[in-house]
Amino acid sequence: MAVPADDLRAYADLVVRAGANVEPGQAVQIVGLVEHAELVRALAEAAYRAGARRVDHRYDDRVIERARIAGAPDDELDRFSGWIERQYAETVEERRAFIYVDGEPVPEPYAGLDPVRVGKFSAARSRLAIVLPASGQVNWVICAWPVPGWAEAVYGTPDTARLWSDLRTILRLDEPDPIAAWRAHMDELDRRSASINERGFRALRFRGPGTDLRVSLHPDARWSGARFHTRWGREFIPNLPTEEVYTSPDHRGVEGTVACTRPVLISGQVVEGLRLRFQDGRISDVEADRGAEIVREQIRADDGAARLGEIALVDRASRIGATGLVFHDVLFDENATCHMAWGDSILEAFDGLPDSREEQIARGINRSDVHTDVMIGGPAVRVTGVGADGAETPVIVDDGWQL
Amino acid sequence: MAVPADDLRAYADLVVRAGANVEPGQAVQIVGLVEHAELVRALAEAAYRAGARRVDHRYDDRVIERARIAGAPDDELDRFSGWIERQYAETVEERRAFIYVDGEPVPEPYAGLDPVRVGKFSAARSRLAIVLPASGQVNWVICAWPVPGWAEAVYGTPDTARLWSDLRTILRLDEPDPIAAWRAHMDELDRRSASINERGFRALRFRGPGTDLRVSLHPDARWSGARFHTRWGREFIPNLPTEEVYTSPDHRGVEGTVACTRPVLISGQVVEGLRLRFQDGRISDVEADRGAEIVREQIRADDGAARLGEIALVDRASRIGATGLVFHDVLFDENATCHMAWGDSILEAFDGLPDSREEQIARGINRSDVHTDVMIGGPAVRVTGVGADGAETPVIVDDGWQL
Repeated sequence: MAVPADDLRAYADLVVRAGANVEPGQAVQIVGLVEHAELVRALAEAAYRAGARRVDHRYDDRVIERARIAGAPDDELDRFSGWIERQYAETVEERRAFIYVDGEPVPEPYAGLDPVRVGKFSAARSRLAIVLPASGQVNWVICAWPVPGWAEAVYGTPDTARLWSDLRTILRLDEPDPIAAWRAHMDELDRRSASINERGFRALRFRGPGTDLRVSLHPDARWSGARFHTRWGREFIPNLPTEEVYTSPDHRGVEGTVACTRPVLISGQVVEGLRLRFQDGRISDVEADRGAEIVREQIRADDGAARLGEIALVDRASRIGATGLVFHDVLFDENATCHMAWGDSILEAFDGLPDSREEQIARGINRSDVHTDVMIGGPAVRVTGVGADGAETPVIVDDGWQL
Repeated sequence: MAVPADDLRAYADLVVRAGANVEPGQAVQIVGLVEHAELVRALAEAAYRAGARRVDHRYDDRVIERARIAGAPDDELDRFSGWIERQYAETVEERRAFIYVDGEPVPEPYAGLDPVRVGKFSAARSRLAIVLPASGQVNWVICAWPVPGWAEAVYGTPDTARLWSDLRTILRLDEPDPIAAWRAHMDELDRRSASINERGFRALRFRGPGTDLRVSLHPDARWSGARFHTRWGREFIPNLPTEEVYTSPDHRGVEGTVACTRPVLISGQVVEGLRLRFQDGRISDVEADRGAEIVREQIRADDGAARLGEIALVDRASRIGATGLVFHDVLFDENATCHMAWGDSILEAFDGLPDSREEQIARGINRSDVHTDVMIGGPAVRVTGVGADGAETPVIVDDGWQL
């Protein structure tokens, strides 16, 4: 057992109490892979300790997904049985807490399969789940479990004890009171977002090797740390770990080029050396050392897929960045450095959101069935804020926060 | 890996093609435990090889069930989320094939928990699933996977290779063509049921140590081997393995005493040395060396729970009986020797079934939300058939079939 029993219990309590922040009497839905059973069980036990009335779990299985992508008729690849849609729908209706466990047993679970079929299946699966983060009716969290294949992707050996040792620090489980440590960390991220909100920047500029990107900020969108609230006011931290302050930009005003600074897994496939050009707010050109076609396929998914939905700032204070590791897992890698996402906006960022999707899009709030984060920051990337007068203020220089 | 890859593939093909008999274009629902993933994956692959259009799986988890029975509020123990009810309902609606994987990782998964809470949870879970065997609209099968805890229950050591070696013979995977071997075996069971049907017995009598039981047979019920057909005529074998010929008796005419000849797991708890008395068709008295309260609790579940729903004949030709082992798993142990079940009838046994449940019950066809098999046969138990004139004909003597 790579994770000692005391650590496992402390981690599960952290996810349940600080992450999802399960309410006494609330129902809980957990989704993970069959390889995550040890954590899923600990989470269920922690949820009942926290007063949950019912804990449902679902173990997905990449091997069965592979069999499906390889063997199902084409018109079935993007269809799901009603029960699985019901699981998401009633998670919203019943106001369940939702916990998702991350950590790929095989770094590229769909390697060797037809990429078009992989893309069709993955896009449909994303559509299933997107109701949750977008709803504001669910307190949810993504956490991770150190499976051997993931450790192998990080270190070259399936050393889960070493992976857990790194995760333990990143997750602040080395602190005397991890839940309190997370609350203090979220306060610090709130201070950062307040400091950028009060400047009233009109845009951000990213400049570095291969990068010269201007991202218009939306006048109705706030910056915040990843401390969310449900519509009924329940606080939760949707990513454990999180190191970012983020906002949703005005998708109409994104121009220039950007070179991604870390590899990223998209639809279960590695994309490396990704270079994008934005024109009139849309990704107009996609190049990569590996996997460009995966990105091209994904940004064709719908009208908003090629437009920006999120921009986020992370500096060297990140415990993830401090490891110097590439985790090949977006939950970790996006919190190592600055990132952006094409696709759906984070609706929680907006004050006074228009009701209809069409109106949102017309007002510069991007909508899409996809939301894919890619890393664009690092020591060589300078970030400035552009004021109303066009003057630029340093935000991140030499990987250090400046405001 | 206790099961060699070739065996695993042959077993999965047997379950899919001879057991569930998945139709090309049919959807498939698999339910197992998280510990059964190796077989569930092989079954999914076999189902796609057989032309399945979609394979859904659900991994249950006894550890999470334990957390629930221990920690959930009392009024939640018998409630399930809508998605799980939907999974069963649409299995019927969509005419999916259904595969259930058996094999307990821990012999008594709910040991140490409050038996009343265990009973409440287990009864509710049985109600969820009973729609499937009763419907005739689903081709379904129960099979098993040799997990270490089960091997430990059988041999005293977690020797899954040894358990697989025994299962392999029982499952006829030692035959050159296992699927053909199963078809021939089902033909033999059909011959047995024909031989008993043509006698027109009014009742069976079981006599042995502690047993003197008279079971009235129902004039509209046939004996058959466990070769079923869906309403639309698809053949399937719902138990792999199966060695029985069975019928549903007239629940109004069961009288006498019966001593169970093997231990049985009920609601995840061991019942040993069970002795029952029937009066006017109802279980009137329950004694046991261990677990009598579990049985008393279960037969209070509803009106039909204390009445007989099935009677089945097995002799020493059984490959399971031939091992001399107690498997502590009803799928195997019930096929080692004669057995009976209290609770729901097997509706497929009846010609001209009345429409309403009430009418069925009034006509001697038992209905209940439970169906629990217990073993009542063995070398010392003699079975005779009672003709219209009261004369008795030997059916099983010295553990050998006589007709």
